[in-house]
Amino acid sequence: MKTRAAIAHKAGAPLSIETVDLEGPRAGEVLVEIMATGVCHTDAFTLSGDDPEGLFPAILGHEGAGIVREVGAGVTNVKPGDHVIPLYTPECRECEYCLHPKTNLCQKIRGTQGQGLMPDGSSRFSLDGEPIFHYMGCSTFSNYTVMPEIALAKIREDAPFDKVCYIGCGVTTGVGAVVFDAKVEPGSNVVVFGLGGIGLNVIQAARMVGANKIVGIDINENKKALAEQFGMTDFINPTKVDNVVEAIVDLTKGGADYSFECIGNVKTMRQALECAHKGWGESVIIGVAGAGQEISTRPFQLVTGRVWRGSAFGGARGRTDVPKIVDWYMDGKLNIDDLITHTMGLDEINSAFDLMHEGKSIRSVIEY
Amino acid sequence: MKTRAAIAHKAGAPLSIETVDLEGPRAGEVLVEIMATGVCHTDAFTLSGDDPEGLFPAILGHEGAGIVREVGAGVTNVKPGDHVIPLYTPECRECEYCLHPKTNLCQKIRGTQGQGLMPDGSSRFSLDGEPIFHYMGCSTFSNYTVMPEIALAKIREDAPFDKVCYIGCGVTTGVGAVVFDAKVEPGSNVVVFGLGGIGLNVIQAARMVGANKIVGIDINENKKALAEQFGMTDFINPTKVDNVVEAIVDLTKGGADYSFECIGNVKTMRQALECAHKGWGESVIIGVAGAGQEISTRPFQLVTGRVWRGSAFGGARGRTDVPKIVDWYMDGKLNIDDLITHTMGLDEINSAFDLMHEGKSIRSVIEY
Repeated sequence: MKTRAAIAHKAGAPLSIETVDLEGPRAGEVLVEIMATGVCHTDAFTLSGDDPEGLFPAILGHEGAGIVREVGAGVTNVKPGDHVIPLYTPECRECEYCLHPKTNLCQKIRGTQGQGLMPDGSSRFSLDGEPIFHYMGCSTFSNYTVMPEIALAKIREDAPFDKVCYIGCGVTTGVGAVVFDAKVEPGSNVVVFGLGGIGLNVIQAARMVGANKIVGIDINENKKALAEQFGMTDFINPTKVDNVVEAIVDLTKGGADYSFECIGNVKTMRQALECAHKGWGESVIIGVAGAGQEISTRPFQLVTGRVWRGSAFGGARGRTDVPKIVDWYMDGKLNIDDLITHTMGLDEINSAFDLMHEGKSIRSVIEY
Repeated sequence: MKTRAAIAHKAGAPLSIETVDLEGPRAGEVLVEIMATGVCHTDAFTLSGDDPEGLFPAILGHEGAGIVREVGAGVTNVKPGDHVIPLYTPECRECEYCLHPKTNLCQKIRGTQGQGLMPDGSSRFSLDGEPIFHYMGCSTFSNYTVMPEIALAKIREDAPFDKVCYIGCGVTTGVGAVVFDAKVEPGSNVVVFGLGGIGLNVIQAARMVGANKIVGIDINENKKALAEQFGMTDFINPTKVDNVVEAIVDLTKGGADYSFECIGNVKTMRQALECAHKGWGESVIIGVAGAGQEISTRPFQLVTGRVWRGSAFGGARGRTDVPKIVDWYMDGKLNIDDLITHTMGLDEINSAFDLMHEGKSIRSVIEY
């Protein structure tokens, strides 16, 4: 079949909207009509050429929502008409990782996914007979895409695609870090470094689970109002205090029960650890640091009871947990609407990247 | 009253066996006749003068066992005749830390303990009218000592003092890190860096809780036989492999479920983290690094699921957990006897330090 898609022909160039060939689903695969997709920093990172694992030409996009239109042989978990969210972290429920209680990092198709291919080692996309790479196993910048069955979360049909697509990456990354990885308890003091989209989702999840103080840290005071709307109780501008770690420890009377680094800066990762409460404070790294950068601290920080961990896709097991997060949104426990600052058609996708680079958007969504 | 004690008059000098004055217990305090005490690296560290918080003159020693001889006003938890193990990490059961489920670092008397004093700010020891400092709230290098009530674990009366004194520090530090901090599950693969006394206690605790592979790492192959006796299943000499992290990942088919650093070297702390299994491996720092040294790693190690934590006194709540460890020893689940390589009288205490410095002892015990 044919589908309209935004093609990344090469690093650093704008996306090109074209009609490409899409082969139907093979065994274990599913044809999905993407109804909406978010445009995420990770797409921009790969498009920039800075991602050492980036492949071109590719169809980017990994934060979508859509409807199953056709299933390949042996597919049992979804059927045509089902509403789904594509999962760049799949959930096969049978690999060593899926069967381990402490991780969500399903490894079943990791090798081929990293190569931009379906699990059988080939691509379904092509243009003029030349294959185009899949991206993060999703390629949601295409009106239709083919996905492995294990990489689709079935969701309720009353959920609006142009909102819940954000759950495919950003919302789950922030909310899940609080709920599934840190397991923040009611009454906890939570500190959030970075008040971008991930930080705001951490904040609203902390509020949802009954946190006490929710302290936001950002050098940009313009982010304060929206963060307060999402649940932030206190704000510290690190450029306006002598020592941000001491300021946090003072404000929280001892330190953060849980801190979250949502920037990707190794210096703030250290601050996030060291502002955690002696004895029990846990710090969760969500942000992605530059290649080769390292975190450091004195081991005494850990020996006196702090814990340093990380989070990927919010620790969520996609098929199991993403539908729950959709429910939380539909129940009004999470606010997604106010995080989606721009909605546009596929033809305007390059302007979504421009808005992101200029810091003018939280999340832009493409509606097909 | 008078008591014989080993006095550390100044840093770097041998201990001096003398008769000192000991004032009786004040309110909330207890007079304990120390029956046996281990000689630990921490005593040697303070005696060397390298400990920036070391105070002189002091009566060192923090790994003892003894009998309550007299109680001060208001003491309710122990009575004369009770057998006890002194706790350098007390358990008041009422401070913010004791009431938190994730830590054992009771802070009730931390300030005065760090100043070498009883909770009321004074010392019970003196010589010729000049006060001598307490050490780690214990001062077990004295035949009689005074302790805060909250710093005594009451233990069963059939436990031999000359063995269970080691539970006052080394045994609990290693065993507790496995049982109370890491909470190692049956079937786990465990990796232990450093096969000294702490490492051997980690190994035997891993065996006790049903670990699968128990991999020891040490540059000294002479330590292999005893480690195997304590439960080590595999040994790697890091000087005989190209890359110790890769060797561990190969041997364990993916990495350690739990790794323990029992050396105090920031390089092996990094190796211990990085040999942990992707997705869920946890690394526990037990060793104490030199002042100012820092650990580092790429944050990717944490974002892909590894957890970095530390352990102090094995995460044990002394009054609650130390009696359990005594039971495990008495039930034959833990071997202490083979870790005590030398037993001697107080007059010979300086030779215990010599044996330690020469690497000829695992643990020397002083019997009064």
